[in-house]
Amino acid sequence: MSYNSFGHVLRISTFGESHGPAIGCMIDGCPPGLEITAGEIREEVLRRASGKSRHTSQRREKEDVKILSGVFENQTTGTPIGLLIENTDARSKDYENIKRQLRPGHADYTYWKKYGFRDYRGGGRSSARETTMRVAAGAVARKWLKVNHGVEIQGWLAQLGPIRTDSTMEWETIDDNPFFCPDPERVPELESYMDGLRKSGDSVGARVNVIARNVPAGLGAPIYGKLDADLASAMMSINAAKGVEIGAGFDSVAQMGTAHRDEMTPQGFLSNHAGGILGGISSGQDVMVSTAFKPTSSLRIPCRGLDIEGNEVEIVTKGRHDPCVGIRATPIVEAMMALVLMDHILLHRAQNG
Amino acid sequence: MSYNSFGHVLRISTFGESHGPAIGCMIDGCPPGLEITAGEIREEVLRRASGKSRHTSQRREKEDVKILSGVFENQTTGTPIGLLIENTDARSKDYENIKRQLRPGHADYTYWKKYGFRDYRGGGRSSARETTMRVAAGAVARKWLKVNHGVEIQGWLAQLGPIRTDSTMEWETIDDNPFFCPDPERVPELESYMDGLRKSGDSVGARVNVIARNVPAGLGAPIYGKLDADLASAMMSINAAKGVEIGAGFDSVAQMGTAHRDEMTPQGFLSNHAGGILGGISSGQDVMVSTAFKPTSSLRIPCRGLDIEGNEVEIVTKGRHDPCVGIRATPIVEAMMALVLMDHILLHRAQNG
Amino acid sequence: MSYNSFGHVLRISTFGESHGPAIGCMIDGCPPGLEITAGEIREEVLRRASGKSRHTSQRREKEDVKILSGVFENQTTGTPIGLLIENTDARSKDYENIKRQLRPGHADYTYWKKYGFRDYRGGGRSSARETTMRVAAGAVARKWLKVNHGVEIQGWLAQLGPIRTDSTMEWETIDDNPFFCPDPERVPELESYMDGLRKSGDSVGARVNVIARNVPAGLGAPIYGKLDADLASAMMSINAAKGVEIGAGFDSVAQMGTAHRDEMTPQGFLSNHAGGILGGISSGQDVMVSTAFKPTSSLRIPCRGLDIEGNEVEIVTKGRHDPCVGIRATPIVEAMMALVLMDHILLHRAQNG
Amino acid sequence: MSYNSFGHVLRISTFGESHGPAIGCMIDGCPPGLEITAGEIREEVLRRASGKSRHTSQRREKEDVKILSGVFENQTTGTPIGLLIENTDARSKDYENIKRQLRPGHADYTYWKKYGFRDYRGGGRSSARETTMRVAAGAVARKWLKVNHGVEIQGWLAQLGPIRTDSTMEWETIDDNPFFCPDPERVPELESYMDGLRKSGDSVGARVNVIARNVPAGLGAPIYGKLDADLASAMMSINAAKGVEIGAGFDSVAQMGTAHRDEMTPQGFLSNHAGGILGGISSGQDVMVSTAFKPTSSLRIPCRGLDIEGNEVEIVTKGRHDPCVGIRATPIVEAMMALVLMDHILLHRAQNG
Repeated sequence: MSYNSFGHVLRISTFGESHGPAIGCMIDGCPPGLEITAGEIREEVLRRASGKSRHTSQRREKEDVKILSGVFENQTTGTPIGLLIENTDARSKDYENIKRQLRPGHADYTYWKKYGFRDYRGGGRSSARETTMRVAAGAVARKWLKVNHGVEIQGWLAQLGPIRTDSTMEWETIDDNPFFCPDPERVPELESYMDGLRKSGDSVGARVNVIARNVPAGLGAPIYGKLDADLASAMMSINAAKGVEIGAGFDSVAQMGTAHRDEMTPQGFLSNHAGGILGGISSGQDVMVSTAFKPTSSLRIPCRGLDIEGNEVEIVTKGRHDPCVGIRATPIVEAMMALVLMDHILLHRAQNG
Repeated sequence: MSYNSFGHVLRISTFGESHGPAIGCMIDGCPPGLEITAGEIREEVLRRASGKSRHTSQRREKEDVKILSGVFENQTTGTPIGLLIENTDARSKDYENIKRQLRPGHADYTYWKKYGFRDYRGGGRSSARETTMRVAAGAVARKWLKVNHGVEIQGWLAQLGPIRTDSTMEWETIDDNPFFCPDPERVPELESYMDGLRKSGDSVGARVNVIARNVPAGLGAPIYGKLDADLASAMMSINAAKGVEIGAGFDSVAQMGTAHRDEMTPQGFLSNHAGGILGGISSGQDVMVSTAFKPTSSLRIPCRGLDIEGNEVEIVTKGRHDPCVGIRATPIVEAMMALVLMDHILLHRAQNG
Repeated sequence: MSYNSFGHVLRISTFGESHGPAIGCMIDGCPPGLEITAGEIREEVLRRASGKSRHTSQRREKEDVKILSGVFENQTTGTPIGLLIENTDARSKDYENIKRQLRPGHADYTYWKKYGFRDYRGGGRSSARETTMRVAAGAVARKWLKVNHGVEIQGWLAQLGPIRTDSTMEWETIDDNPFFCPDPERVPELESYMDGLRKSGDSVGARVNVIARNVPAGLGAPIYGKLDADLASAMMSINAAKGVEIGAGFDSVAQMGTAHRDEMTPQGFLSNHAGGILGGISSGQDVMVSTAFKPTSSLRIPCRGLDIEGNEVEIVTKGRHDPCVGIRATPIVEAMMALVLMDHILLHRAQNG
Repeated sequence: MSYNSFGHVLRISTFGESHGPAIGCMIDGCPPGLEITAGEIREEVLRRASGKSRHTSQRREKEDVKILSGVFENQTTGTPIGLLIENTDARSKDYENIKRQLRPGHADYTYWKKYGFRDYRGGGRSSARETTMRVAAGAVARKWLKVNHGVEIQGWLAQLGPIRTDSTMEWETIDDNPFFCPDPERVPELESYMDGLRKSGDSVGARVNVIARNVPAGLGAPIYGKLDADLASAMMSINAAKGVEIGAGFDSVAQMGTAHRDEMTPQGFLSNHAGGILGGISSGQDVMVSTAFKPTSSLRIPCRGLDIEGNEVEIVTKGRHDPCVGIRATPIVEAMMALVLMDHILLHRAQNG
């Protein structure tokens, strides 16, 4: 079966295929009284949109967000917020040739094994098009967090293939380049790397980091709804994600306890290897998450694959694709962080009034 | 609020504190007809137990597992399986001195911020004692998977602090040493490293890997109950976990698409960078997960911390502790893998009959 | 917070207000391979529609059902089915006068107390307009049940105000009159009763029964997801419902055990006081549920009420209303029965393969 | 599969069979800081206990409630509360003769069809013994509601077979007789009716009502977690329940709108046909629920039934049984009311802070 809902008491449910008529989302559990407009949501959605630079897919969606319910006179009412975006630039004919082919590295084979039937156009439900709705829902959560708790969320590209991009953090420049790269001096290097990659027909992975500031202490639902467990699930549910770290992450493996434990003084913590979470509960420090994205598998470079009858075929993927899906992942990762944090603030209120 | 349940249709719920009278677990949704005894469950629980070598905590629990319900004439009935283990070797007086202290790197501060009141003895609910019940429940899931689907699950210590331990994989030796190390030749090195660590009073992190074989293709509940998302949540919910990888994990960041995508032939996949999961659904390949565990923060080496009034205090942790919590994590990681897989097989049956 | 989703593994989520731009629904967990068209769904929706006779509200919606996702080439794919109906005949100006008034017997006061802010037009989210989407989702469930298990579901009006209408059951005539009355000879009496009621400006309650045939034995999830408990919740969640009975219902109070217990022979049960459910699990007998609907409170006959500042006001409700909401409840009750049964068949498969 | 948990954010999970070693319960989500002792819980449990008069089953359990977790120094900690009661007076030999028989009116047949295997002793999991744990959990909820919101919950026997028992309400006498009858003058009549019934070997149904006072307005989670829908599910999940009414219930069927709608003045509502709930949300009026319980089917009077091979057998039920299960239902109904209300207060806090 499917599980197209996310969250405990703030719950988002999404529907829609890459090449279907529309994608949609329902946000359930948002408190009443938040001012929000379709325009604000669309602004966030456009940050994730393709077609804005030559380094991403050239599909150009209008991303015309419609609020169908739950908002009255620009204010949330407490009832479910229905959001809809019509797909306007799907080019399904690109997919005619893979109708009977199962692209390696894609969900084609596994959806086939699971359901025995699929909407093959643009990956159908398994397409990252679905993440548009996460960003839309995340825009609401983000605003709520900002207005009510002063929470600030910022993501960035930390590594693109071999290139580390965050040794220098110039926060305010992150949105100024198509990579969400925090170091403007690395942008030309990224440009030329991507140009070469595009020419080669290959793709590459990326690491995207996200930080949340001003997170109240005490968020997290032990034992199985820990804040870090929910963040891990949230990030790993994004298309192409293969790894998630909280704070020091895999560096913890070789760390000594005396180095890792974050000492405390009345003035605050002396370090943040924990990434703002201890025992599954936020400590009030910055919450820090890092996510690894694999290289996209949609390549025009041929490879060996199967068709739906199980015959070997040579597979060449045409259509419009991102040579590095991680480039557009930053707004998605921010959205998931926002949704998890808002959900946990509401949850915390339930038990702690 | 708390979320002490895990799983969609196979659901485990645990209760109990480290120094309370008992820890318990309820397994809901296990199909009828599985033969299982308390002895079999205890056998798994003992694999995780402390006090078996000088390299782990010296707390020695009898781990006398009682089945209170759901099993009749050694067969599951389909009704909830109640499990109970009485705590027999808690030494609460060790914790008198930290009654009013918040140990850095522990959940003390965050539980205090969340609940304003805590059972400080042995970490209370935040203690890894809780994971005993995961292993107990996992024993049931593991047997069910084995009997019904031939699924085999094997975990191992892949790295202990600076020492990589799995360049050679001698599967059958993993349970022969107290580290779950798959390379018997590295065991002496581990022994002497741990001896030195214990003397120094410090602790260290570890990486634990787990593989599941013979997993049916088609498991996973898109979009937010993806198999990898659920595994990430499962592993990250284990005490001290700071990172989770599926398949190539963070190595994907620097990989090219041509290298990462696992080509397919009628004879099978040519590689497994995906770790057995594509689009959140199992592909039939081995499912591979890697988890990073931080070094324990309970050290006799003093550090700066706070008391519950917010005053700075020097904190020295006595009591019996694991200098490397990752050593005993292998059976826990296996249990979480088993619980997730069984849950997803049941879920898959719901939708696909 | 809100809970706009229903079901365990077949889950429907609805959004939309009576006078908003559209109402929508997402069906999650429907197995792949069911043939379904928007036309079939609309046919069911029209059975519930107002404006078809003089005895119901004169609001006339096109009820143009759009399938936005989850169906490809007229077949369900296993991914979430998105449904949308645009509101085309809302007349919001009718509600200007109650903008600041809280109508007795309505959800106006309680929504106000809960959310402090509301979309007052047509009752907003609390309007029975929402039930349109239950019927739409129910159409899918109903077809699935019919095709896969031969389950037949039939509801009827059993009582309208003082008039008992089901002493004679002519099943095939139920859809031939605007009341879903199974006894064609009572229809003229109902017509004239309703004409009188409309003239008087008053309203009246009703009892609606529903039966499901060919329900497999073994459905139900003890202890808290019992089939009857889920049916009770399903029916009681319908607007204006005030009571639910399974089988003999309240008649059981005065029954003797020897009369109530349904004796069994190899040829089957000798009676069905249980209503097809024993211990929360279906027995294979017909599942029978009866629901009481209160009279609508939207009357042009004045009454005492409050405005949102708490002042006493005389309240007169204009707009287009049903003098007996129970008349149109039959398709809703059928839909809820279908959704519960399909959910429980899927659930049962999870545990029992 | 099974669903042995109840509630949204306050969740209880129960396990245990009638003749197993113990029954248990876990309460998840109870806020920290509530003072509670095992003695207080036991006091409530004893109100439900059998063997206190000649009119109920003669099984006499010690009902020795043990708190295994979640309470430290007599205060809840916010972590799950584990409760356990050992079964001490099960007489399993009584059930040897029905080992292969399926008692009509019982869950024997349906459990057999669902699971194919059952613990037949005393009904196993389908026994009302499970409701002991509802009362235990309810005791915690009840105290929390009282201390934090002044909520008072009172149930009573409203009808026993043909005898209406609540035309006179002398609240303070309800606990003074073994029937929870609010009219002391009817007690002798009940005594003699029950004596006759016991002699005859037959059984009879009952109606049990419950009222909750001082319930805050605004509780309820539209659309599918409405307060009345959750109460209906809660009550219908109790063994032998066949009907649930809120407020006027089935009397609404024949009511006119002018009579049913509860007019409001600044001094309050002028009536309470709604039973304190409008649109699924509490209005601040008394919440009123009525539940029908069928007569028990365990009779020594023979009847026709099947064995597990499907052969017809004459069935005679020995053992110790309640000739009217409704007599002991009052504390259970109160417990379910308490659990639902506390859950909804916590839920409401989540969204409305």
